[in-house]
Amino acid sequence: MLRRFGSARASLEMVPQLARRGERSKTVTAVTRSEAEAELTALHRAGARMIFWGEPLYPGALAAIDDAPTILTVLGRAELLERPMVAVVGARNASANGRRFSRDLAASLGRGGVVVVSGLARGIDAAAHLGALETGSVAVVAGGVDVVYPAENRGLHEALARDGAIVAELPLGTEPQARHFPRRNRIISGMALGVVVVEAAARSGSLITARLALEQGRDVFAVPGSPLDPRCRGSNDLLRHGATLTESGEDVLSQLGPLLERTPQPRPAQSVETPNVQSWPRLDASDLAKDDSGFELILERLGPAPVAVDELVRQCHLSAAAMATLLLELELAGRVERHPGNLIYCAST
Amino acid sequence: MLRRFGSARASLEMVPQLARRGERSKTVTAVTRSEAEAELTALHRAGARMIFWGEPLYPGALAAIDDAPTILTVLGRAELLERPMVAVVGARNASANGRRFSRDLAASLGRGGVVVVSGLARGIDAAAHLGALETGSVAVVAGGVDVVYPAENRGLHEALARDGAIVAELPLGTEPQARHFPRRNRIISGMALGVVVVEAAARSGSLITARLALEQGRDVFAVPGSPLDPRCRGSNDLLRHGATLTESGEDVLSQLGPLLERTPQPRPAQSVETPNVQSWPRLDASDLAKDDSGFELILERLGPAPVAVDELVRQCHLSAAAMATLLLELELAGRVERHPGNLIYCAST
Repeated sequence: MLRRFGSARASLEMVPQLARRGERSKTVTAVTRSEAEAELTALHRAGARMIFWGEPLYPGALAAIDDAPTILTVLGRAELLERPMVAVVGARNASANGRRFSRDLAASLGRGGVVVVSGLARGIDAAAHLGALETGSVAVVAGGVDVVYPAENRGLHEALARDGAIVAELPLGTEPQARHFPRRNRIISGMALGVVVVEAAARSGSLITARLALEQGRDVFAVPGSPLDPRCRGSNDLLRHGATLTESGEDVLSQLGPLLERTPQPRPAQSVETPNVQSWPRLDASDLAKDDSGFELILERLGPAPVAVDELVRQCHLSAAAMATLLLELELAGRVERHPGNLIYCAST
Repeated sequence: MLRRFGSARASLEMVPQLARRGERSKTVTAVTRSEAEAELTALHRAGARMIFWGEPLYPGALAAIDDAPTILTVLGRAELLERPMVAVVGARNASANGRRFSRDLAASLGRGGVVVVSGLARGIDAAAHLGALETGSVAVVAGGVDVVYPAENRGLHEALARDGAIVAELPLGTEPQARHFPRRNRIISGMALGVVVVEAAARSGSLITARLALEQGRDVFAVPGSPLDPRCRGSNDLLRHGATLTESGEDVLSQLGPLLERTPQPRPAQSVETPNVQSWPRLDASDLAKDDSGFELILERLGPAPVAVDELVRQCHLSAAAMATLLLELELAGRVERHPGNLIYCAST
């Protein structure tokens, strides 16, 4: 919208009009100035801050994914987000050995100069956060940064808010719900250069993170385990399908070596009003001219089953930039919805 | 020698002459008729028999390796050797889980129609033999088939002699020594279509079997295990280097599928005097003419470090058949020795 309408203010003013155009039954209301100010005050009170896509502290790897969050709320040491990160994730009901391995692995990655990111769940996640607490530990949570979940992780939540960082896409006070977790997982893998899976059962959430990591072009690492332990079924399956076998932090660091050595590009600081709009691909006049016919082109190709945006681009003979703008309008109009992995489907109206 | 001299009798008569030609200090004596007859009588008494390279019962896969044993002594159901085999090997000090897995795996392979071959060692080997005892279990031992080793496997030795088969390259009564084990391992992998390694420490004997299996073109399978267990270091390392990750018998059977379905070629029965000499590549006159100059060609390229026969063939511009004959003569003359994997080096004289 920034690209299409030139500024955040102009974009916000367009929202009701775009929503009407889509004949959406529900009213779409942008946040009001007073609501926004109240949220910023609450953030300030909680000791948290917002980081916007395009700002220097916004994690570079995450900024590059298709569906990068526009806003991240961060509690704790936001400067950790600038450093190279590796995700360590796994089973909630992890074995004692799995927890110990996870903690040692995280500590070893920390000594190697890497910030460890995980999901602040029980089991493997908690052990990974603990292991990297001294060197740099970032938790991405499914709810708001101020909501402790699960309750048993209260102590770890407090420690991370002080010595590490807690990151959320959703606003303060949001209670995490089942549907939030896959969206959260894309941020974990998106922030990281690689994802290490320690003890994951078949069809577990950690495998979703691993799949998202692959889609995002991240390296996937898995720790082998006994075939007699169902908690290792998923991680062994990742190995079977090409994940890098991991027995130590060194296995991860040596594989990521070239990525870790690359100095992050300094990015110019941007105002909140126009986060580096300059660097985005611009629409040209012909793209804009196509817009209205474009809606029909897209909608006739969509159904309840999700379709990849790339596939839509090919089938509609539109540029990727034009497609992005059209889909944004259709989303605002409530006509289409997005799945993680940049899949689009018709909204049930 | 059969190829060179036309018959077993003529070959035996040539041995002393060949040995003299190499200026070997020790006398090489072929077995005498009475010695041979005594051995056959002892075999008969022990309920064992000999199987010669080229005979129908000689395992087809083993016959194809470079350094296939000329004679196998078999105690028990020799007919098991005709069926497709898979080796299951691993740590002597295996974990309880490793033993259980090994036994279940062997039983599952047996149900899949495969004979399980192993080394009758403690731990993984013993468990594998037990699991496949009903369906078909073959032990290849480093000493003689009548020598129980280790003592704790006496019961299993007796069970295999009755319901399975015990196979040895060395004569009855031979006590196994450390140097016999790698030679024994080449027979285990050579008989098998694939080798499954369950729990193997770094630098363990099971890894030698795996390496020999690779050199023999066999599939190598490895069972994943916790990085915290040193008994899994070697097997995990095999996975890292491309072994097929194995969590069940089905993983092995599906990978070997095409090999298992191939009906074994019926081979014509041969007399002991001339085991299918007809099917061996014959030397032509020019090969024979090169022989004497060939000795020098080979010896000047050899030192104490082992060299692959293939490399010698390339460097000496000799045919593989001529090389085989020359090396045999040099071996008989005590000038060269062989390592497993068809490596040759100068004998220290």
